[in-house]
Amino acid sequence: MADRPLVMILNGPNLNLLGTREPAIYGHDTLNAIAARSATHADTLGLTLEFRQSNHEGVLVDWMHEARARGAKALILNAGAYTHTSVALHDAIKAIELPVIELHLSNPHTREPFRHESYIGRAAKGVIAGFGAAGYLLALDAVARL
Amino acid sequence: MADRPLVMILNGPNLNLLGTREPAIYGHDTLNAIAARSATHADTLGLTLEFRQSNHEGVLVDWMHEARARGAKALILNAGAYTHTSVALHDAIKAIELPVIELHLSNPHTREPFRHESYIGRAAKGVIAGFGAAGYLLALDAVARL
Amino acid sequence: MADRPLVMILNGPNLNLLGTREPAIYGHDTLNAIAARSATHADTLGLTLEFRQSNHEGVLVDWMHEARARGAKALILNAGAYTHTSVALHDAIKAIELPVIELHLSNPHTREPFRHESYIGRAAKGVIAGFGAAGYLLALDAVARL
Amino acid sequence: MADRPLVMILNGPNLNLLGTREPAIYGHDTLNAIAARSATHADTLGLTLEFRQSNHEGVLVDWMHEARARGAKALILNAGAYTHTSVALHDAIKAIELPVIELHLSNPHTREPFRHESYIGRAAKGVIAGFGAAGYLLALDAVARL
Amino acid sequence: MADRPLVMILNGPNLNLLGTREPAIYGHDTLNAIAARSATHADTLGLTLEFRQSNHEGVLVDWMHEARARGAKALILNAGAYTHTSVALHDAIKAIELPVIELHLSNPHTREPFRHESYIGRAAKGVIAGFGAAGYLLALDAVARL
Amino acid sequence: MADRPLVMILNGPNLNLLGTREPAIYGHDTLNAIAARSATHADTLGLTLEFRQSNHEGVLVDWMHEARARGAKALILNAGAYTHTSVALHDAIKAIELPVIELHLSNPHTREPFRHESYIGRAAKGVIAGFGAAGYLLALDAVARL
Amino acid sequence: MADRPLVMILNGPNLNLLGTREPAIYGHDTLNAIAARSATHADTLGLTLEFRQSNHEGVLVDWMHEARARGAKALILNAGAYTHTSVALHDAIKAIELPVIELHLSNPHTREPFRHESYIGRAAKGVIAGFGAAGYLLALDAVARL
Amino acid sequence: MADRPLVMILNGPNLNLLGTREPAIYGHDTLNAIAARSATHADTLGLTLEFRQSNHEGVLVDWMHEARARGAKALILNAGAYTHTSVALHDAIKAIELPVIELHLSNPHTREPFRHESYIGRAAKGVIAGFGAAGYLLALDAVARL
Amino acid sequence: MADRPLVMILNGPNLNLLGTREPAIYGHDTLNAIAARSATHADTLGLTLEFRQSNHEGVLVDWMHEARARGAKALILNAGAYTHTSVALHDAIKAIELPVIELHLSNPHTREPFRHESYIGRAAKGVIAGFGAAGYLLALDAVARL
Amino acid sequence: MADRPLVMILNGPNLNLLGTREPAIYGHDTLNAIAARSATHADTLGLTLEFRQSNHEGVLVDWMHEARARGAKALILNAGAYTHTSVALHDAIKAIELPVIELHLSNPHTREPFRHESYIGRAAKGVIAGFGAAGYLLALDAVARL
Amino acid sequence: MADRPLVMILNGPNLNLLGTREPAIYGHDTLNAIAARSATHADTLGLTLEFRQSNHEGVLVDWMHEARARGAKALILNAGAYTHTSVALHDAIKAIELPVIELHLSNPHTREPFRHESYIGRAAKGVIAGFGAAGYLLALDAVARL
Amino acid sequence: MADRPLVMILNGPNLNLLGTREPAIYGHDTLNAIAARSATHADTLGLTLEFRQSNHEGVLVDWMHEARARGAKALILNAGAYTHTSVALHDAIKAIELPVIELHLSNPHTREPFRHESYIGRAAKGVIAGFGAAGYLLALDAVARL
Repeated sequence: MADRPLVMILNGPNLNLLGTREPAIYGHDTLNAIAARSATHADTLGLTLEFRQSNHEGVLVDWMHEARARGAKALILNAGAYTHTSVALHDAIKAIELPVIELHLSNPHTREPFRHESYIGRAAKGVIAGFGAAGYLLALDAVARL
Repeated sequence: MADRPLVMILNGPNLNLLGTREPAIYGHDTLNAIAARSATHADTLGLTLEFRQSNHEGVLVDWMHEARARGAKALILNAGAYTHTSVALHDAIKAIELPVIELHLSNPHTREPFRHESYIGRAAKGVIAGFGAAGYLLALDAVARL
Repeated sequence: MADRPLVMILNGPNLNLLGTREPAIYGHDTLNAIAARSATHADTLGLTLEFRQSNHEGVLVDWMHEARARGAKALILNAGAYTHTSVALHDAIKAIELPVIELHLSNPHTREPFRHESYIGRAAKGVIAGFGAAGYLLALDAVARL
Repeated sequence: MADRPLVMILNGPNLNLLGTREPAIYGHDTLNAIAARSATHADTLGLTLEFRQSNHEGVLVDWMHEARARGAKALILNAGAYTHTSVALHDAIKAIELPVIELHLSNPHTREPFRHESYIGRAAKGVIAGFGAAGYLLALDAVARL
Repeated sequence: MADRPLVMILNGPNLNLLGTREPAIYGHDTLNAIAARSATHADTLGLTLEFRQSNHEGVLVDWMHEARARGAKALILNAGAYTHTSVALHDAIKAIELPVIELHLSNPHTREPFRHESYIGRAAKGVIAGFGAAGYLLALDAVARL
Repeated sequence: MADRPLVMILNGPNLNLLGTREPAIYGHDTLNAIAARSATHADTLGLTLEFRQSNHEGVLVDWMHEARARGAKALILNAGAYTHTSVALHDAIKAIELPVIELHLSNPHTREPFRHESYIGRAAKGVIAGFGAAGYLLALDAVARL
Repeated sequence: MADRPLVMILNGPNLNLLGTREPAIYGHDTLNAIAARSATHADTLGLTLEFRQSNHEGVLVDWMHEARARGAKALILNAGAYTHTSVALHDAIKAIELPVIELHLSNPHTREPFRHESYIGRAAKGVIAGFGAAGYLLALDAVARL
Repeated sequence: MADRPLVMILNGPNLNLLGTREPAIYGHDTLNAIAARSATHADTLGLTLEFRQSNHEGVLVDWMHEARARGAKALILNAGAYTHTSVALHDAIKAIELPVIELHLSNPHTREPFRHESYIGRAAKGVIAGFGAAGYLLALDAVARL
Repeated sequence: MADRPLVMILNGPNLNLLGTREPAIYGHDTLNAIAARSATHADTLGLTLEFRQSNHEGVLVDWMHEARARGAKALILNAGAYTHTSVALHDAIKAIELPVIELHLSNPHTREPFRHESYIGRAAKGVIAGFGAAGYLLALDAVARL
Repeated sequence: MADRPLVMILNGPNLNLLGTREPAIYGHDTLNAIAARSATHADTLGLTLEFRQSNHEGVLVDWMHEARARGAKALILNAGAYTHTSVALHDAIKAIELPVIELHLSNPHTREPFRHESYIGRAAKGVIAGFGAAGYLLALDAVARL
Repeated sequence: MADRPLVMILNGPNLNLLGTREPAIYGHDTLNAIAARSATHADTLGLTLEFRQSNHEGVLVDWMHEARARGAKALILNAGAYTHTSVALHDAIKAIELPVIELHLSNPHTREPFRHESYIGRAAKGVIAGFGAAGYLLALDAVARL
Repeated sequence: MADRPLVMILNGPNLNLLGTREPAIYGHDTLNAIAARSATHADTLGLTLEFRQSNHEGVLVDWMHEARARGAKALILNAGAYTHTSVALHDAIKAIELPVIELHLSNPHTREPFRHESYIGRAAKGVIAGFGAAGYLLALDAVARL
């Protein structure tokens, strides 16, 4: 199984509270449940998956560098609130030279104006947003099609 | 086959030139090729697909109303340039009360600033952008998962 | 009856869905019902009425030119979403040199910021907004008082 | 006559100079003449009218509260210059929970940019603008149709 | 009791309607009830309290000058809507050279964007906002701690 | 003396505190002292002077209308804080059709950005600012030269 | 004559009213007169000319695609009001890969601010504006010099 | 004592330097001294207090989640510089569904413009600012009154 | 006469055309006529006057330095168009540490928006604007009163 | 030849380096070569041409005044970088009351945003841009057609 | 050697990837190589150098506090992406009261607009940017010259 | 010595007053003293130095062209106030294709907002700011390291 291409799914701040936090916006699935379903789907697609979450911007940058060092095929990044404020993540995407998919549970353009602009989006290969937990599976599909 | 749910894919201005127009940005697939692949994929997913293109904002509005009148399950809308300027399409999405997926071949956030804002996105359920022709198939997957 | 002054009421995109579309904002009257009531009221006021709707910006421009060519006394224009984006309609108002009344079912200033600015309003003689279907009758009254 | 519904028409700063002030913009009718015509028209519509003018923002707020206390059916407010600067009037409209009609002699959107935004409009039920003195009668018609 | 330090609490436009006006935002306490509770609390803190309300910006400026002339220890100012538009109140705070506490029942930053900027705040010593009627008591505590 | 032309000098909010308020910005002269010196100077110039102050925007508007009614030759207006926020004063200047001189003790362009824009200035004939109390005498000179 | 290079001149909304519409801005020539003079001039320059007008944004896009399909040498585009609002025309210019000359009768920079920005201009090879009907002939000269 | 409601006071970046850092703005109290006084005051109010400081945005988010997990009654947050830049903290406030009090030693509205906007404030229940170290005690009072 | 204090009046670009250029805005006096009248008035006030004009921003800066080197009492600067664009003149005012009076023939706030902001004004002691040629005499009066 | 109408072509900063400076943007023609070709073309058109270049804004203003003094028929102005920053040149165009043609080698709207706004354009009769050296000949043609 | 003054060089996010990341912008030197060269150069200048890198904003703040606690002579800060978003680092510079040199490998003003504003720069003593790895040596020179 | 590479240091407006002008910002060194120290340092580095100052934007452009014509190795440009307003200098840097170092005595980002943007910086190779007179020596060091 070591030969299977590695995909990392990185989740940003507050996503650890998923399923309990504002379910009208983010849905009722917990992050663990999503991780499990993603693992199953990745397996079907012949991909090795690492699924992580951190509230720390710097940790997300560190993990992105790790993805590059380990030769990951692609990165799926739900950066949460850092999407709109982090030039550091933007620069990390440019620096690691891997295809990065920007992922959101909700569609940020339907929310507050400060969520309309995305530093992640300026560097990411593609965007998938608004499909709730199903978005994780679609993002894996997108990786498989790359 | 009449019982299969209907999905419409509507394409906006200049997408008829696909494959020849700025291939560095939009890829080498023609719209016909994409329509064919989309039809095959929709069939696999048990969906009836109608795939259209128009350079006319008003025609796109008319077709969206038609989708509602015919009870479509969902609408996939690559509105092209109208994404950034058309309140009429925005209002049509609100009016037809169907799930609409905003689709783009390229990722608009990596392009000119006037492509960063989206009237479509303020009303759409979800967004898929940056995956080239494969985005059409991912959007159909997303419809199937709704 | 040919001697009665002609008034045109032109309706823009998505207004054909009136009565079913977002009734909390736009009310429960259909456009046909409004057309009928407007016709009755125009008759009372001694006016000949033509009542039309199109989702096409260009068609609205064409009709405005027609109003001028046929010597209409005034034009009532509910331009819907084009109110906020169409310099073409703005220029048409200037070009036809007829009194134009900007009409809205809801009051745009109570809605999204992108509905606060009006290209129509920069050229129109007057504005009537926020009175639902009754606004059509008030606009006809306003024409009669001109 | 006490049973007739009460309507108040409140006029803001500088409107007492009407008829002499910049007639190219505001017309030749004096405010007294408009008050008289409005009274006649209100009578026809079965409405009791109070017609007032003040140059003081605070007095206008006081009068709006009075309208509420006396159970007025509706308020017609030509707030003049305060339209564009007064959050206090905006909040008063919200506070009195009566239908308020924003009225202007000229069409503010055809004038200086600082007249394009309206705090009144963000809270008012409807807007009538650009019809000169006739606008007062149309506003009374609108009240009668509520 | 004449030796007790004087504190003035000044309330701006529409606050006289408190308790009936938009209770979801402003709560169910009337201004009289708040005045009474504030008086009791001030007494406990050894402060003489004057509690007033006006809808007139100029009256509020006059009262602020009076506070200075009478040697008040501090001023608590719930300027309501004038918070966001009144440079005159801003200048009055600078001119009277007393500690002024900006007070709001609701938290303006959770409301409309035009309530995010505060002329009062640019000159006030401190801000207490969002605690409803209890904010008046906290503001008196703050004065006592000065 | 009744034949001498009338000039009114109107002072806006907080100017009654002159001489004690922020002397580093506004100087040590009281408004009474300035009024006296202005009266003497006006007399020399053969002008009848009325010199007033109010903290109320509406009172300033009322007085401007009075100036017109009494056939004043010119108006000198130190509108203080209302300079930057009052469209009502702007409209009053337009309405009274008298030459109005905008006067400031300090030079607003050297102060906070919100003092850089002037509604008064958009309608006034001329501006004199930054000369402290001497500005009142210069403004009277300017009237004499008109 | 089939061997002569093809040039298309496309005119946008309201230009069909030329000669009667706001002659102070647009001059007294009708579009037919301009078409005739342009045809004569093109003939002199050895060019085949097609001269069209539409009020429909979509039709203009269609015609631009046609120009490309027919191997036109260049396109002269007086997009009228669409100049300032149409990303679709901008994208069409990019897509057809022909030299496009942006043409205006008046000089937009001397008019309303919303005419200062040009989506056409961001993609066009060159601009000719402000010369009235003579601009059409200059644009043909420019094509001849390409 | 375990039955006493838990309140957490979280302090953001650079607040560990309090008492030595820019005392003209932030005062001479050290954070330890403030923690001690806050503990005493909380005890008086019957509250259990945890008082922490971190320079790390992610740690603050982690602690806020901990507050929720441990059933805290309320959170007092002096987010320092993160107040103005952290959407992550904003989202954390929304996610933990506890009453959060935004606290500042100085009044940000009297400082640089980039301190006028607050992401914390858009989600917080209330704000206390400008009272120096005494603000911590007022915030505890506010919690006690909730 | 060498003992009389020196005042320099510097005029910027296009002012040499005065009297012929746009007399509706700038009046019918030539700059020479104004220089003569200013010289006479300066003499009356006991001042030595140097009156110059240049279209070159750098020459104006050089002359301002010269004014300082020669110990001028004050500088009167009608910088014309450079008022709105020249940080160099702004810095020169700061550098020469002389009182500088900003002078304009017309009142810039009544003209195009790009004339509302003034770099000169941010550094000048005072402003006199809108009095036509008489402004030069008022500015000399102002110097005499310094 | 003295009877031939005079046309001046003025070139602004850095245009003396033409042909060597950034040829991808500005082409390979030197300014001398363009001057020669322009002279020949002017001769054909029966025009006397003066062709100059300066890096000094003030010199350009001086020359524009000279054009007026010598009764030039028209002015062709390639103001280079001053196009976007010089109110002085804008005012000079207004002052000299000659038809001025704004000329650019490249099309500024396809370049950096700070080149999209033009002070020259607000005052110029017409604009020719984007045709490289050929633009000079087209501008002469335009003069001939005036 | 303990007596030598301490200088800290702190590097922010993604700088650990130097030499491999976007070499067209950042050059081919690794951070280790730069650290070595900096150490040698510091030694020559008689300075003790500590050279560190972190992707964590909070760690950078912690280290800055450490620099102050250890009595460092100066701090050289290449904050990378945090330059443009971190008020926390800005406040840390103010708080530690050491001379801080803002350092960048590339010149941010030649890059994306969001890199034109710098929170670091508002507090730093000096800036060195655009000299690639040599900038580290120049910054040490600058420290030596302080 | 003719073989030594030439470096030009150009100083912009008001820098001739150095040492006497606002020493709190710019220091006590005169420009002559700086020139002398720069010459000595350049000699040490094996560079030929020309050191000039002008208040004229156009002269600075001329000198930059001269630097190119004489084959200078690099240019050090302290453009003073022109830094923030001169597109002409920006274009000159692009045109001369020499490495240009932007130099400032103070750090512009710590000063007025209009000094935060730099046209020079958009074209310069590097920036050195905030080191007072020592910056000239650092800039020469930087040239030596190129």
